[in-house]
Amino acid sequence: MPHTSSPVAWPAEIVAAARRIAPHVRITPCMDFSWQGAAVNLKLEYLQESGTFKARGAFNRLLSAPMPPAGVAAASGGNHGIAVALAARRLNVPAHIFVPQHTPLAKQERLHALGADVHLGGAAYADALAACNAFREATGALESHAYDHPATLAGQGTVAREWQHQAPDLDTVLVAVGGGGLIGGMAAWYQGQVKVVAVETEGCPTLHEALAAGRPVDVEVSGIAADSLGARRIGSLMFPIARQHIAQSLLVADEAVREAQQTLWREARIAAEPGGATAFAALVCGAYRPAADERVGVLICGANFDPSVLTRTAP
Amino acid sequence: MPHTSSPVAWPAEIVAAARRIAPHVRITPCMDFSWQGAAVNLKLEYLQESGTFKARGAFNRLLSAPMPPAGVAAASGGNHGIAVALAARRLNVPAHIFVPQHTPLAKQERLHALGADVHLGGAAYADALAACNAFREATGALESHAYDHPATLAGQGTVAREWQHQAPDLDTVLVAVGGGGLIGGMAAWYQGQVKVVAVETEGCPTLHEALAAGRPVDVEVSGIAADSLGARRIGSLMFPIARQHIAQSLLVADEAVREAQQTLWREARIAAEPGGATAFAALVCGAYRPAADERVGVLICGANFDPSVLTRTAP
Repeated sequence: MPHTSSPVAWPAEIVAAARRIAPHVRITPCMDFSWQGAAVNLKLEYLQESGTFKARGAFNRLLSAPMPPAGVAAASGGNHGIAVALAARRLNVPAHIFVPQHTPLAKQERLHALGADVHLGGAAYADALAACNAFREATGALESHAYDHPATLAGQGTVAREWQHQAPDLDTVLVAVGGGGLIGGMAAWYQGQVKVVAVETEGCPTLHEALAAGRPVDVEVSGIAADSLGARRIGSLMFPIARQHIAQSLLVADEAVREAQQTLWREARIAAEPGGATAFAALVCGAYRPAADERVGVLICGANFDPSVLTRTAP
Repeated sequence: MPHTSSPVAWPAEIVAAARRIAPHVRITPCMDFSWQGAAVNLKLEYLQESGTFKARGAFNRLLSAPMPPAGVAAASGGNHGIAVALAARRLNVPAHIFVPQHTPLAKQERLHALGADVHLGGAAYADALAACNAFREATGALESHAYDHPATLAGQGTVAREWQHQAPDLDTVLVAVGGGGLIGGMAAWYQGQVKVVAVETEGCPTLHEALAAGRPVDVEVSGIAADSLGARRIGSLMFPIARQHIAQSLLVADEAVREAQQTLWREARIAAEPGGATAFAALVCGAYRPAADERVGVLICGANFDPSVLTRTAP
């Protein structure tokens, strides 16, 4: 697989990824949803294996490289780690997941339950990443980057291919951005044929800042969605794709994300984590206002959270 | 609409109902789901307007009769009341919902939020029903029975028509039973072409007891799903349909329902109330064991509950 973002190569890579991962991931459903007079198409990707879209990239990465005896290693206490652990378990290979010391016990337990070797250590994500890299160098374990690898991008891009088949008439899709693997893969599939709008929280403006600077830059991340969208620096592979094929980059407040979560639950019994509801938040707060007759799709990309928050603040 | 269960008339009534309610309800999605080696098709009807399938029957009832100035009256503190209140609000007619005094404040608030006139009174459901009937006689308000009315049955039957279009190859569908409006409408659509399996909790064996007795009989109801499945007596309209077109009637323990709820959340981020997970519970506990190559569908019919229970007992 080439390490380029050639507009010719990506669609073929995404088709290949879709064939590769089909036996292992779900075709997630879509649903038309009327909200405040506008009809939007929701892609319910949070119903995916592992609870987020991350399973697509993880399976594609593990299936498209020779697997060393040491298995796969990833640094992540979050959705990527869960997806890698799940994919490794299903494919019967060892998974080594490196997480910082302060990782919540519930997340560690979930990784254990998925059969992963959990390596706990270091104060911050950077320490876990350093330990992961040292482990890989010592053992030859396969790297599984959370977003900045062609196999990951191609895997996440299969969401767009699938959605286009299910809802071929969409003009615009709203997609949340963390490290950019998801929206990068999707924009690489659409190649500008569908308007791709990036949505980030004000606390995690990783793509927004990079686009403003004209290059990937380090960003401090914080706020309600930091656990899933809080990548320090946007992927270098996706950045040229974003410059070419992402039409708009929007920021939303944490409060809009909270309201989006509540609205999705109250109106449609969709349980989305903050990062999973961030794209919808752009409609909730008016950051994105569809034109008359514009057919808008919203990707609901994850639900690895405690759903008790959905009823804690609203009846 | 005729008050009969003629096998000739029902499919036409269901087609008419589907046309009538189409502008007001959602086409709910399906998803293939592999679980313990078996592939089942889940119909995610809990994503329906109002949080349960009940919106279908409520809209059909309100749209298929002349609406008196007094509006519609229903006795229900549960899913039927919510669906009637929602349908009345959308159709801009008054809704009078009669609930017993002990109805939880959260449910009363939801009815208020939907714009209904909430009539609180009486110790038990029977008292609320008596008050509702007296009100209807005094005001001429439209009756909206929770299950034992042809318009309700035809409305709920639209789920089967929709599902058959989405997943035409199913051999068998598992459906939870309360008063029988849902499964009665569905069985009336399938007419035996798909094997319909009824699932009730041991605490709410309303159809099971009626089939054993050969006629609708009064049943004491209790347990985890009583708030949604706890009808005292099975519908008289659906009973002959059940005798003719329901292949099996199964009972599951409350513990299996709880496990089904946890499994749906853990494996697929589906948030189902106890009644909504009852059909799936028949697979979880082995009450229903699919044959090799049998294509089984499971209806997930409701999610009006506090999802914090999903993480309270399992990580």
